[in-house]
Amino acid sequence: MSIHRSYCEQIPPQGTVLIQGEEAHHALRTKRLAQGDPLEIFDGIGTVARAHIAAIERPRKNEWAMHLQVEAHTTHPKPTPALAVHSGVPKGPRLDTLIEGLSQAGAAHWSPLLVRRSIVDPRPAKLHRLARVAIESAKQAHRPWTLTIGSRVTLAQALAQALEQALAQALEKQGTSIVLADASGAPYLPTGADAITLLVGPEGGFDPTEIETARDAGAQIACFGAHTMRIETAAPIATGIILDLAHRKAPRHDQPVSTPSPQSSVSHDGRTAP
Amino acid sequence: MSIHRSYCEQIPPQGTVLIQGEEAHHALRTKRLAQGDPLEIFDGIGTVARAHIAAIERPRKNEWAMHLQVEAHTTHPKPTPALAVHSGVPKGPRLDTLIEGLSQAGAAHWSPLLVRRSIVDPRPAKLHRLARVAIESAKQAHRPWTLTIGSRVTLAQALAQALEQALAQALEKQGTSIVLADASGAPYLPTGADAITLLVGPEGGFDPTEIETARDAGAQIACFGAHTMRIETAAPIATGIILDLAHRKAPRHDQPVSTPSPQSSVSHDGRTAP
Repeated sequence: MSIHRSYCEQIPPQGTVLIQGEEAHHALRTKRLAQGDPLEIFDGIGTVARAHIAAIERPRKNEWAMHLQVEAHTTHPKPTPALAVHSGVPKGPRLDTLIEGLSQAGAAHWSPLLVRRSIVDPRPAKLHRLARVAIESAKQAHRPWTLTIGSRVTLAQALAQALEQALAQALEKQGTSIVLADASGAPYLPTGADAITLLVGPEGGFDPTEIETARDAGAQIACFGAHTMRIETAAPIATGIILDLAHRKAPRHDQPVSTPSPQSSVSHDGRTAP
Repeated sequence: MSIHRSYCEQIPPQGTVLIQGEEAHHALRTKRLAQGDPLEIFDGIGTVARAHIAAIERPRKNEWAMHLQVEAHTTHPKPTPALAVHSGVPKGPRLDTLIEGLSQAGAAHWSPLLVRRSIVDPRPAKLHRLARVAIESAKQAHRPWTLTIGSRVTLAQALAQALEQALAQALEKQGTSIVLADASGAPYLPTGADAITLLVGPEGGFDPTEIETARDAGAQIACFGAHTMRIETAAPIATGIILDLAHRKAPRHDQPVSTPSPQSSVSHDGRTAP
């Protein structure tokens, strides 16, 4: 199958980098990689590097570390459109399902949305753990850019942020890049914007006054399916539909650019690096 | 919130019906409905009836039963296009997530697909339990037609079934109603068919020879996202995209038809039944 990928917050342009903690444990113990084995490291903000294990250390029992020799970098531009999802928060393990689904579907950002019918208000510690879930998912989904996790926003804050973004993009019709998912809407009309905000309600949906507030801000009320969906199903499906239609309209401009490191012409296993 | 819905295999055209077991327990204990309370019953094959609780029985400790007075029927035509999904089987609780996701997204049918890289082959008892998951999901999603669960099929069987269906539909180009989800494909092109077959591979994807076999049968190889997706994310998102595009092309003809029962003009709570 595909090559193992480890997360590394700062990838040096060349030379070696030390990976410790959970990432090293996972690569060395769970995946049983050994000295000389190839792997990929990614920083979650567009850079993926091919590397190999130059040395393994075991400073203490159950503590692992690995020195990686960086071979070649690939820089992936940020995918467009960037889709920020603000949604109600499902209970228990369904919140992880939501984050994993959004990550696989290609959303750029998620924040918990506080509206009248919201029940769950995740604490900072939980949001921190979700950022970890997003990194793990980015590895499996081969996302060079990790889904970012934001702190809670109210509907007014989400709308204000979206309108500011639209202003920055100099969109002709401000607010048209805001999409509110509701059964009362029509099929989604592609906005053509580079930054899109998707609002998904809590269990029980948005309050009618909330829908009106969003509509007044220029939001498109769109329906993404014939049936009532749970948050963790609705948000990834709406994301999938919005991005699928965007990529039909304009082919994606996110082809990676490769930059071989000086010492990278031939990798340890004799294969030529990209 | 919305009115409670109970499953009832055979809804009589009028009069009363007895609901026992899990369904009665859920309505009376979990939801705490009482004599006179309104609820809906559905048979999973298109009929939803408005009813009220005429009498409650408790034959034994922890055993509940309720007699419902049927008030008015609504018959929902089978939604089109009917999407049959054959997919790899995710492990553990992720299989339930898949079934719930497909149910909410609007798929008509699911069967486990056996291909070279398949790992999990669900036993009949597990498929039986999944049928129960589909009924529970139909209640929450307000689906009048329940997602049906089929027994395992091989790729050859799935293709043969789909080709037979296309023949029955007298499609000009047989096989165009078969869609195989793979990263190598182009964006999905709506087929226009009334019955569509979607094939989603196991973890690790389809074998290249399997993709060729499907292509030879006329299948469209389509990509539903930029990233690697797990089965339980890929199948509902692909379903969402296929049905969303189908409903854009042709507005849905599945508006319900209501038939009031003779005794249904005014329901117990004084509101006029539909």
